[in-house]
Amino acid sequence: MDKFKVTFYPDNKTVRVEKDRTILSAAISAGVYINSSCGGDGVCGRCKVVVRKGQVESQATGAVTLEEKKKNIHLACSTIIHSDLEVEIPESSRLNFDKLTPEELEERLSGLYSKAEDIQPVKTKLEAGVFKHSPFATKLYLELPKPTLNDSVSDLERLYRALRQLQEFPVVQTGLFNIRQLGELLRDSEWSVTLTLGKRNDTVEIVLVEPGDTTHNNFGLAFDIGTTTISGQLVDLNSKKILGTKAAYNQQAAFGSDVITRIVYAGNSDGLEKLHNAVCDTMNQIIRELISEHHIDLNDLNCIVCSGNTTMIHLLLSVDPAHIRKEPYVPTANFLPVVRAAEAGININPRGLLYCVPGVSSYVGGDTTSGILSSGIYQKEQPCILIDIGTNGEIVLGNKDFLVACAASAGPAFEGSGVTSGMRASSGAIQKVSINKKDFGVTYSTIQDKKPRGICGSGYIDLLSSMLEAGIIDKGGKINAEGSRIRSTDTGKEFVVCFKDETDIGADIVINEADIENLKRSKGALYSATAILARHLDIELSHIYKIFIAGGFGTYLDIEKAIKIGLLPDLERSKFMFIGNSALAGARQILLSNQAMAMADKLASTITYFELSVDPKYMDEYSQALFFPHTDLIRFPTVRF
Amino acid sequence: MDKFKVTFYPDNKTVRVEKDRTILSAAISAGVYINSSCGGDGVCGRCKVVVRKGQVESQATGAVTLEEKKKNIHLACSTIIHSDLEVEIPESSRLNFDKLTPEELEERLSGLYSKAEDIQPVKTKLEAGVFKHSPFATKLYLELPKPTLNDSVSDLERLYRALRQLQEFPVVQTGLFNIRQLGELLRDSEWSVTLTLGKRNDTVEIVLVEPGDTTHNNFGLAFDIGTTTISGQLVDLNSKKILGTKAAYNQQAAFGSDVITRIVYAGNSDGLEKLHNAVCDTMNQIIRELISEHHIDLNDLNCIVCSGNTTMIHLLLSVDPAHIRKEPYVPTANFLPVVRAAEAGININPRGLLYCVPGVSSYVGGDTTSGILSSGIYQKEQPCILIDIGTNGEIVLGNKDFLVACAASAGPAFEGSGVTSGMRASSGAIQKVSINKKDFGVTYSTIQDKKPRGICGSGYIDLLSSMLEAGIIDKGGKINAEGSRIRSTDTGKEFVVCFKDETDIGADIVINEADIENLKRSKGALYSATAILARHLDIELSHIYKIFIAGGFGTYLDIEKAIKIGLLPDLERSKFMFIGNSALAGARQILLSNQAMAMADKLASTITYFELSVDPKYMDEYSQALFFPHTDLIRFPTVRF
Repeated sequence: MDKFKVTFYPDNKTVRVEKDRTILSAAISAGVYINSSCGGDGVCGRCKVVVRKGQVESQATGAVTLEEKKKNIHLACSTIIHSDLEVEIPESSRLNFDKLTPEELEERLSGLYSKAEDIQPVKTKLEAGVFKHSPFATKLYLELPKPTLNDSVSDLERLYRALRQLQEFPVVQTGLFNIRQLGELLRDSEWSVTLTLGKRNDTVEIVLVEPGDTTHNNFGLAFDIGTTTISGQLVDLNSKKILGTKAAYNQQAAFGSDVITRIVYAGNSDGLEKLHNAVCDTMNQIIRELISEHHIDLNDLNCIVCSGNTTMIHLLLSVDPAHIRKEPYVPTANFLPVVRAAEAGININPRGLLYCVPGVSSYVGGDTTSGILSSGIYQKEQPCILIDIGTNGEIVLGNKDFLVACAASAGPAFEGSGVTSGMRASSGAIQKVSINKKDFGVTYSTIQDKKPRGICGSGYIDLLSSMLEAGIIDKGGKINAEGSRIRSTDTGKEFVVCFKDETDIGADIVINEADIENLKRSKGALYSATAILARHLDIELSHIYKIFIAGGFGTYLDIEKAIKIGLLPDLERSKFMFIGNSALAGARQILLSNQAMAMADKLASTITYFELSVDPKYMDEYSQALFFPHTDLIRFPTVRF
Repeated sequence: MDKFKVTFYPDNKTVRVEKDRTILSAAISAGVYINSSCGGDGVCGRCKVVVRKGQVESQATGAVTLEEKKKNIHLACSTIIHSDLEVEIPESSRLNFDKLTPEELEERLSGLYSKAEDIQPVKTKLEAGVFKHSPFATKLYLELPKPTLNDSVSDLERLYRALRQLQEFPVVQTGLFNIRQLGELLRDSEWSVTLTLGKRNDTVEIVLVEPGDTTHNNFGLAFDIGTTTISGQLVDLNSKKILGTKAAYNQQAAFGSDVITRIVYAGNSDGLEKLHNAVCDTMNQIIRELISEHHIDLNDLNCIVCSGNTTMIHLLLSVDPAHIRKEPYVPTANFLPVVRAAEAGININPRGLLYCVPGVSSYVGGDTTSGILSSGIYQKEQPCILIDIGTNGEIVLGNKDFLVACAASAGPAFEGSGVTSGMRASSGAIQKVSINKKDFGVTYSTIQDKKPRGICGSGYIDLLSSMLEAGIIDKGGKINAEGSRIRSTDTGKEFVVCFKDETDIGADIVINEADIENLKRSKGALYSATAILARHLDIELSHIYKIFIAGGFGTYLDIEKAIKIGLLPDLERSKFMFIGNSALAGARQILLSNQAMAMADKLASTITYFELSVDPKYMDEYSQALFFPHTDLIRFPTVRF
């Protein structure tokens, strides 16, 4: 079979690939990381490369301008290799932190990572989930009696005896690691030691024995591992205080934007390993940033709780997710054992434990379980809805007696991925927008009032709603107005939100018709899933008591405008409550309370999964939702443009 | 400080050592293994080396003849280095299997290892310890229902569900290793798999998942890890049949003959590691021999139970035994967690589990617990005694209501170590001896009727008793007769048991006065410990119901003669029962029954340890026992010479 030699610059890495491979695929084989948030759909335009030498065949795409085509710029994801090639990867398309100097890394991270204060959890009046303080890792200081000829029990039994005098544990385990150190450690510390106890499935493990009293240094991490965004939170396990929160794009994005593309990629040789490494790298970077900002020793991080969809958790633990996408859609495990974080490649104390919040099915994962836990809908008398807006949107309908969940493939648009000027809800993101109906002048605010760098999810909701109100777009999402901010491009029309001079990125911030299409599909998928789920359970949406909206939108989401664009159903506004990142909040509750952990286990085994695609009315519902707000305006009585 | 360069041949390994080090110590530093069963006492004569060049200072020793001295032969253990040296290690002094060709290894092993039939467990009428068959590792074959859209629980939960339909387990665990393989394995095997379940502390672990039905291949190992001798037994966990038994000298002997010298050695840099490696090497060699003889795949060995004294178990698990020999004599642990055999360096299935029978104290270990279990004295109405004859002899006195144990430092003489012609109870060992009173002619029988290679423990008991009866030695152990078999040497008199021509080793098999002294001390330590323990508990020896004699004597031990030399008390003969290697038998019971494992845990926590040395009468008792049979002949009314 023909093989072509492809060399990437500036890496100067060469790889031999077979016929019909794309440049992106060759880059991945060569270990050169290229941005690719849409996973090869040719939509996001983030994987632009320059073909310096050789023959290629590019699919038609709106993401490359005629100007760019003349410069031999192609999308790596949708360009087929037809000869030996030399390919230049511009800095803007690179996804490779390792080569950066510390200073460059710092600069890059400052954009990529949110400052802690950006995404402090949204404060709600929610009283749900008040669990007893009993963290995943607990520290106990013990002063042991010295052995004598009359009291000569062994070192280990001396430790157990002292422990059992404080509290009765059903099953206590210790590994050889600690036992091997015990003799010297007890004597060097003059019999005063601190034990770190961790809950390990149904047993208690002595995770660590340290000399002296170290009970004041006991920290843990809560993580929400999203398909697009990973958020981590550093928690003081003694005071229950959140010390900091950081988020970053999941580096797995280089291998595809949604779980299906990633599962397919995992099937390649080394594919699983690369995806696993990408999620670990992202998490480890977040951890490094958090501990360096808060001057905490890595060794004082004793445990970590991860919420994530089922595919993300499989990839984190290097478990092949292949069967998640094959009928009958069975994951390897929904309930995973507590493991050492090190076994999953996560760098905390080498003995530290990692718990993955259990999921329900292949498409309703532990992030949903966490959301149910932190929203408290499992305690409500009346039926409530939880809508978690993410790349995989999950909708839960239920109360204390029943819980039914379904998954909607919303895509990453509301996370700022796969849209031209999209970004996460971090410093410089436009989060609030209004448009003057007369001259289409734009007023906006950004996170931390920085010069704008892009638009985040809540910004897009505002923007769409304002464009509708101003008559810039029609109900189908087409731009049908004229003005200085509206211009035509190769790929259709676009609206300029901020001109180059106002921005921090040296380029216009725009929304184009392809972006609007993407956002419309996302909101349509979420709304139709909500409607179908209620219909399936024979519950009128108007009879719903509360609707909890979750997602990584930062501190701001305008419910009114989300209804206006048809993302949320048109119900009494007081029923809605924006609860922020509920998957992260749930992980934090579990981190701080074994009762919450037990509740998560219980919830995951009682939630019923509803498969949308088997409902014959689903496609109909979805098509009807591909308008702003909806084809059936009777469903949106309060929305008028 | 002066450093000398010592080069060992034929290894051609050089090491630099400080002043005042012995050749043996330098050899150990150089990683050259030399036989040394007495640990530097200059007694066994097994560490002979040739000093080719350089100055040394040798302690006077009877183990090197004048002839040998002229050839520059010295004992490595007691020869001090005074300059740079070149040292030749003759083949007979080497303890290094790794360099041998497979053929040489086979030849070497045939002498070193007993054939299985040599040491089949002694059959007794003992009814003790009839436990339910529930092996440490159990295999279960499961045919799982294939997943469907209506039955889409995850792979792991499908496995658990099927398992729980068969049996209710309190806590079941599985590691990531198995979970990572599960998806493919279940599908490739068409949902028919065999689980290996192992008891891990208070939980059940799925140790292994294999495709198809492999329930017929489930093997385990029982080990008795003695200071001098290590015995291993291969057991079919399904049929409960013993497939084979092998024993070998503990390779740790190169670092000292008793636990105290080994503990001291463990305190050197790398000392613990070397001792750990030595015990692992010995065990792994026994395992390799057993499985190759029985055509068993290493991967079908799923578990291993180890009996051993507290120091041996510490060294097996690489736990520093330092504090065992320091007041107040506290080990790091008596109860050790179940670990993977691989964690302890033992080569069975990499997931296989290892359980160490719990001990009581620093000097009464898990081998004693196993002996109590297999002898069944913990079930008796009347007080019984268990005497386990080993390098560390243990004596237990008790019944169903109480159990008190003590330890006597007997030394390795009855294991054939530290005595001129000593060997283990294996092929070619003289095990039965009688002497004609007229001409001192010797009649003997050997194990497997092979040409004699040496004398084992039961042979020495017979020999001493016969020499006493024939008047060759007096009650103090001195040779005071004349004859063709009696001759004088540099180190005193010796008695020739077999002349060179009759033997398989090209040398006379002899017993000399130093050997007799060694054996006398061993028997004296065991007898006096028994007497002191009974006195301490205020029980007349004559009121003891049964006396169980344990030890690695092969199939033969003449109780009558053991009484004659004063090793055992002079009681009614019907009270004595020789039960062979009770530590190994107990390990096997535990391997085959979780009930036995639970009983071992219970016994170890109820046995009382009695420290002999704190009894003011101990030294007196011991001195009185240093005669054949005893100073106080009233205690041995039936013994007459």
